[in-house]
Amino acid sequence: MVGVAVVGLGYWGPNLVRNLHDVEGARAELVCDLRPDALEGIARRYPAVRTTTDFADVIADPAVDAVAIATPVSSHFELAARALEAGKHVFVEKPLTASSDEALELIELADEHGLVLMPGHTFLYSPPVNMIRSLIAAGELGEIYFISTSRVNLGLHQSDVSVAWDLGPHDFSILRYWLDETPSHASALSRGCVIPEIPDVAFIDLEFPSGTVAHVELSWLAPSKLRRTTIVGSRKMIVYDDTSNEPVRVFDSGVMLRDPETFGEYNLTYRTGDIVSPHLEVAEPLRLELEDFARAIETGSTPQSSRELGLEVVRMIEAVDASLEQNGAKVDVGAERSLV
Amino acid sequence: MVGVAVVGLGYWGPNLVRNLHDVEGARAELVCDLRPDALEGIARRYPAVRTTTDFADVIADPAVDAVAIATPVSSHFELAARALEAGKHVFVEKPLTASSDEALELIELADEHGLVLMPGHTFLYSPPVNMIRSLIAAGELGEIYFISTSRVNLGLHQSDVSVAWDLGPHDFSILRYWLDETPSHASALSRGCVIPEIPDVAFIDLEFPSGTVAHVELSWLAPSKLRRTTIVGSRKMIVYDDTSNEPVRVFDSGVMLRDPETFGEYNLTYRTGDIVSPHLEVAEPLRLELEDFARAIETGSTPQSSRELGLEVVRMIEAVDASLEQNGAKVDVGAERSLV
Amino acid sequence: MVGVAVVGLGYWGPNLVRNLHDVEGARAELVCDLRPDALEGIARRYPAVRTTTDFADVIADPAVDAVAIATPVSSHFELAARALEAGKHVFVEKPLTASSDEALELIELADEHGLVLMPGHTFLYSPPVNMIRSLIAAGELGEIYFISTSRVNLGLHQSDVSVAWDLGPHDFSILRYWLDETPSHASALSRGCVIPEIPDVAFIDLEFPSGTVAHVELSWLAPSKLRRTTIVGSRKMIVYDDTSNEPVRVFDSGVMLRDPETFGEYNLTYRTGDIVSPHLEVAEPLRLELEDFARAIETGSTPQSSRELGLEVVRMIEAVDASLEQNGAKVDVGAERSLV
Amino acid sequence: MVGVAVVGLGYWGPNLVRNLHDVEGARAELVCDLRPDALEGIARRYPAVRTTTDFADVIADPAVDAVAIATPVSSHFELAARALEAGKHVFVEKPLTASSDEALELIELADEHGLVLMPGHTFLYSPPVNMIRSLIAAGELGEIYFISTSRVNLGLHQSDVSVAWDLGPHDFSILRYWLDETPSHASALSRGCVIPEIPDVAFIDLEFPSGTVAHVELSWLAPSKLRRTTIVGSRKMIVYDDTSNEPVRVFDSGVMLRDPETFGEYNLTYRTGDIVSPHLEVAEPLRLELEDFARAIETGSTPQSSRELGLEVVRMIEAVDASLEQNGAKVDVGAERSLV
Repeated sequence: MVGVAVVGLGYWGPNLVRNLHDVEGARAELVCDLRPDALEGIARRYPAVRTTTDFADVIADPAVDAVAIATPVSSHFELAARALEAGKHVFVEKPLTASSDEALELIELADEHGLVLMPGHTFLYSPPVNMIRSLIAAGELGEIYFISTSRVNLGLHQSDVSVAWDLGPHDFSILRYWLDETPSHASALSRGCVIPEIPDVAFIDLEFPSGTVAHVELSWLAPSKLRRTTIVGSRKMIVYDDTSNEPVRVFDSGVMLRDPETFGEYNLTYRTGDIVSPHLEVAEPLRLELEDFARAIETGSTPQSSRELGLEVVRMIEAVDASLEQNGAKVDVGAERSLV
Repeated sequence: MVGVAVVGLGYWGPNLVRNLHDVEGARAELVCDLRPDALEGIARRYPAVRTTTDFADVIADPAVDAVAIATPVSSHFELAARALEAGKHVFVEKPLTASSDEALELIELADEHGLVLMPGHTFLYSPPVNMIRSLIAAGELGEIYFISTSRVNLGLHQSDVSVAWDLGPHDFSILRYWLDETPSHASALSRGCVIPEIPDVAFIDLEFPSGTVAHVELSWLAPSKLRRTTIVGSRKMIVYDDTSNEPVRVFDSGVMLRDPETFGEYNLTYRTGDIVSPHLEVAEPLRLELEDFARAIETGSTPQSSRELGLEVVRMIEAVDASLEQNGAKVDVGAERSLV
Repeated sequence: MVGVAVVGLGYWGPNLVRNLHDVEGARAELVCDLRPDALEGIARRYPAVRTTTDFADVIADPAVDAVAIATPVSSHFELAARALEAGKHVFVEKPLTASSDEALELIELADEHGLVLMPGHTFLYSPPVNMIRSLIAAGELGEIYFISTSRVNLGLHQSDVSVAWDLGPHDFSILRYWLDETPSHASALSRGCVIPEIPDVAFIDLEFPSGTVAHVELSWLAPSKLRRTTIVGSRKMIVYDDTSNEPVRVFDSGVMLRDPETFGEYNLTYRTGDIVSPHLEVAEPLRLELEDFARAIETGSTPQSSRELGLEVVRMIEAVDASLEQNGAKVDVGAERSLV
Repeated sequence: MVGVAVVGLGYWGPNLVRNLHDVEGARAELVCDLRPDALEGIARRYPAVRTTTDFADVIADPAVDAVAIATPVSSHFELAARALEAGKHVFVEKPLTASSDEALELIELADEHGLVLMPGHTFLYSPPVNMIRSLIAAGELGEIYFISTSRVNLGLHQSDVSVAWDLGPHDFSILRYWLDETPSHASALSRGCVIPEIPDVAFIDLEFPSGTVAHVELSWLAPSKLRRTTIVGSRKMIVYDDTSNEPVRVFDSGVMLRDPETFGEYNLTYRTGDIVSPHLEVAEPLRLELEDFARAIETGSTPQSSRELGLEVVRMIEAVDASLEQNGAKVDVGAERSLV
């Protein structure tokens, strides 16, 4: 039984505490936040969980085997580093760190101490995302031509990070997971509409070594919530809509290029077949994610949401930032430095 | 009564002939196509319309006051120029020409001969597009922060032009019409998925002098038809879906930034109000467009789909092409040369 | 080549003329309507088709082998009878006649003269309807528990017939076609909302000998068009929405009753599987229907939309009327007199 | 502060306990269920709440001012009667009782002891339902012509009651609340598809004294969840879809009958205007309901979900049962005995 301390009671922290109650191999031991009233709320709901306002208590506590960090991203590195140095396994909410240098340093620290370091890319545990990954891996879609995704809704402007740092980790981790490759290049256009210095809408283009291109639209400003991803393959196509009762819809449609004629005429065939909404198991991704964390600690397995994937996601966001600084120019994602 | 010759019986030509029958001030006199069987089809349907395979007949015909050109874009310039030189008013299907130089030359020719030259940007006559233009013009949406649009479906790969030349004129003309300004910069990512040398998917970013940014996604490869445009303003937002029974939906939603606090805290208010689908008149845009052409010929008025707008649309596509050639770099649209 | 005269240029007549142009084995010879201006419109469009305001011309014309009647239902019997007596094959728009007695008399007349009599139940030629019929016939849905259907929209109040006579033939013919049986009982509730003496909304219950029950909601008053039918079988379920891009959706869902326990406990299993939208051929049902009519004339085959089915549909509407007159009581549909 | 005992930990009981924690004027004191393991679950979650398996403890407890009964309907009467006799206020989950006689007896008991008796018709506290009630009351819809509603989904067959007793209370209470009148007549068709003796689909017709008719479709067998109600008025129409992000949509559409012509011609005008989705407050209906209960206890006010409304709902279900027993005949709802 892994004793876990949850640090930070913003949006994700309470979800972590709640889910830890349902995880077989782990237990919420301690909860840490600077705000006493946030701690009180938890104490009332979960009388068995101890609380503290001091992170020093967390790393000093012998009942705490692992620390789950759900604080603002700027503090991820320092808190994770201190926990690792104190011999605690570490789970960090996405994005892993505020820079790839920080991520690399944490990875080194984890190696040094033989500890688990895991970023919380929850979507890697979502049934629709995994269904799509299986279909891609099985070749059902053929070559992946392109992916276009929109993650927008009205809400929750962050005051410390851009929309790319806030929402980008979702799509970047999913793309990395589905395609099993890191993009080679990124470019982006962004605008701070409400607060000029904080970009709240971003249009991001990604190019992958295999030829796949991806477009990612992120925004905190939208008339209605949209979580829509289109995956166009040479054999089939998929629409993944996370807000729908049928989140995955597989279209047996495509265009075939038959032997090009001698005189420059193209001979195309359009194919439109059945559309299937495969049945999906109902599961709470966050619980599966925490179980993966507990399993990694107990068995030494590599979690699906690996530290290397977390590092690459940070590099992708850094590339977006670099493109924005260079007036939208296409930027090298630095995959050559990839650890995977 | 304006006598019109329709040249080219591909997709649009027959629609032009059909709609000319409903236009008050114009009449289809002559139809020209290189393929005798295409002409036969028209002759059977419209026995009163004469046919020819020779464009020389068109410009020589004294009953022909105006020529409507619906041929592949590569031939627009030559045919339009010959018609203008023969003293015929000219209507050209979008895009106006294959280059802005050609467009400028046609404009000069039209001026020289005192003739109407009009590109067929049909969407400028669509009731939803005009409803949205009115709302923007009336300030209902406030400042236009950004516009994101998807025009995709499975189908009709062109063998001579890219998806940007084929579908781009729709969105570019609409954006120009709504915002009343030409973008200053464009950048793009594109891929030829089915036929490598012919881009069939494009992700295009546009920046306008006022600060508005726009994203345009175009594709001939998609699981289902999408004609969805989101317009995010500081006061209201609109979703325009041309495939829906309710093509315009106005969201009285937004984010307000209240007096920023002294110490870097932002004070945001989210507002979510009613959603309204305004009732729209039913009208055939193509008929309205041809009536505007006839009116321009008879009264000297400037058509809503003006030659200058047609020129700017060509410049926008050229900028997209230039960006693609420069590896996605941000390109000046050349608005400084604008005639408007 | 069957020479056809179309009688009545209301809503359906012009569609019949248009489709006859695409039918291989038939040709529109003559068009008849009391209103000269309606005839002029047709003459302008189809110069080869002759016109008359006198039905006597129709039945006297030797080039007319068959008469297609698209007049108000009250005149169906007289016109059809005169045509049959004149030796013409007869196609009648739905419903076949204004009473089952009239229908029986027409059937006798047709037998007497050895002529084809066919009601125009167009939905029997619609690809979605036929796809569903095949699935039911193949046992894919198991036992059909119940069918619930809504056919409502804002519009086209008839001044001579109730909504049951106007819209009922669609659903009644489809149900008869799918289930291959005539309902034994009907009951109904109706209201004349706008014009008290003309029912414009009806809720109709039907019971079939096999145990299947059906509910049919019909209305000319509705906020939006609905053409939605749910078919619940013991093995699978179908939603048929004729306004959708995916008109047929097959749900592999159901409830299984396992060996009931000894002490009154029921052991139910809920099954939720994939949802499939089968690809459907695109076809114009009206053209297929007219081809079936021409085939029946030329080969003596029985059309899918048979006169017996037409008779049973009339009996179903009569049963609805009888129930309404008897304060909503359950009424015998009179299937024992069925000819099938 | 009202001390409440919750009796019955099936589907609704735990929701009552949870919501009582958020209600200002009430507190969950005691929870009672026959199954010790159900009690344990509550005890773990809410350590402050006491538990018992014996209802005698509930009515003997001086800290218990009121009893909330969420047991199967067959036990409602006995438990409620015992609680009232012990001087406890009573809240009963819908339907109030298994017969109108039982309901009348409970009402008498409550009067005798001067106690609150309240059925839990939660939908009367739902923001969309109240928005629609206000629009109807304000005359926005004009005369209510008819209401058609579908409440179907795959699931949760009850083994003790029919679908009319299980799902009917929702729609019957809403209709009563909106229309402010009890139906005069009811008729119904039903079928036990999975378990022959337990009807799992029902089609119910209701007629109201004002002329309004209503159709209610209820089923535990359906391909997908449907909570769709259409309200057609003489001035406007509403679609209420409780599963949608926009649960209320108001259509400014209708048909107007202008001065009927002298010779039997009707002169109808169709009007199609804007569609509005009014913004709705987010609120937890169950919490509002319990607050109304607490308020009734403390101030003597009549709760929105009144005992009389609860009685009438039971009478409506009884009328449905009577119609089913009489082969679908139209049955008097017995409103003449109404207490309201």
